[in-house]
Amino acid sequence: MRFHGFFRSGAAWRCRIAFALKGVTPDFVPVHLRRGGGEQKTPAYRALNPQGLVPTLEVDGHALTQSLAILEWLEETIPEPAFLPKDPFERAEVRAFALVIAADIHPICNLRVLNHLKDPLGHSQDEVDAWYRHWNVLGLEALEAIAVRNAGKGRFVFGDTPGMAEICLAPQLGGARRFGVDLAAFPRLVEVEAACNALPAFANAVPGKQPDAEA
Amino acid sequence: MRFHGFFRSGAAWRCRIAFALKGVTPDFVPVHLRRGGGEQKTPAYRALNPQGLVPTLEVDGHALTQSLAILEWLEETIPEPAFLPKDPFERAEVRAFALVIAADIHPICNLRVLNHLKDPLGHSQDEVDAWYRHWNVLGLEALEAIAVRNAGKGRFVFGDTPGMAEICLAPQLGGARRFGVDLAAFPRLVEVEAACNALPAFANAVPGKQPDAEA
Repeated sequence: MRFHGFFRSGAAWRCRIAFALKGVTPDFVPVHLRRGGGEQKTPAYRALNPQGLVPTLEVDGHALTQSLAILEWLEETIPEPAFLPKDPFERAEVRAFALVIAADIHPICNLRVLNHLKDPLGHSQDEVDAWYRHWNVLGLEALEAIAVRNAGKGRFVFGDTPGMAEICLAPQLGGARRFGVDLAAFPRLVEVEAACNALPAFANAVPGKQPDAEA
Repeated sequence: MRFHGFFRSGAAWRCRIAFALKGVTPDFVPVHLRRGGGEQKTPAYRALNPQGLVPTLEVDGHALTQSLAILEWLEETIPEPAFLPKDPFERAEVRAFALVIAADIHPICNLRVLNHLKDPLGHSQDEVDAWYRHWNVLGLEALEAIAVRNAGKGRFVFGDTPGMAEICLAPQLGGARRFGVDLAAFPRLVEVEAACNALPAFANAVPGKQPDAEA
């Protein structure tokens, strides 16, 4: 297995947590999203990932893309420890939580969108940061409400084991903190994050500990 | 089952196709996204869907949200006709295709994002339309490349039956056309769309045929 990622990509960060939880250790291929106009835009990389985005997981001649599809593939091929509960309603709840982040927060605040707001749209760094915080706060408010409603179930959002919800939550809170989102309004999410970061799979996946990390 | 949606929402549109393919007919509850500042923002609706977005599927006391989570729930509870192939690699490919749309095109071009670009950011309607087209074209280019690579497999993207890929593709192309995206650059996608629209499940799910449709 070869994993193409970037230390700061939230989607790659999800996959790093997932690999560690499932006990797989792909070789890492850094794809620098800024250097040389973006290594993810080269023809060689686009042959693997036509979107020119990270991450990509190469395995047995297949190039798997989209972090949530990679998480589902891991879940189907390495069932334990499970990322999803067994009951279809509960699975839908966990997937919906993950999608609030993976569909409705992260892509709107992705590097390529932030860059587009600056050039060609001409927004200042302050305006770009405000954009990031706006969509994060909207999403995190919904997630906090869901997490509070489920708080009786255990240390994590939906029980006593982390899964797809936490795999998406921890990187998003990391990004939010970096952009100055005030997390005081989301105490349950921060509590879950602390429970996550007590586990090596989460603690070792943070951007600062990756081989391609920069200050 | 009660389905809360809006005729023009791409995410609700996906669910309508999926219900028809699986042979379920939930009662429809219209949620008007513009009237009265947006019916999706009322406390009553947010109790079902904390994000205040459509769609929501109420079933057996559960409120399922996020269209892709609803599709996966349908797939798990009503296996036939299948939305996903059996092989894990193929499932990952189909899910990735769906996620290019559901994560990396649609949420960036959603009504709430377009509204935000106008107010508070002050962009004109022309600039907002250009934003919509920019992110659609980027995503559709990747999808066309994937679809061309798989074209030998059948009438649809990954074979001779429609599934999660087409359920996401058809509404996105509908939206793209409405915003003036030139689809001539995506002949394989348009060909797949035509094969979709030959099926009643797709043809009857278009916005113009819904009870809450407006001109």
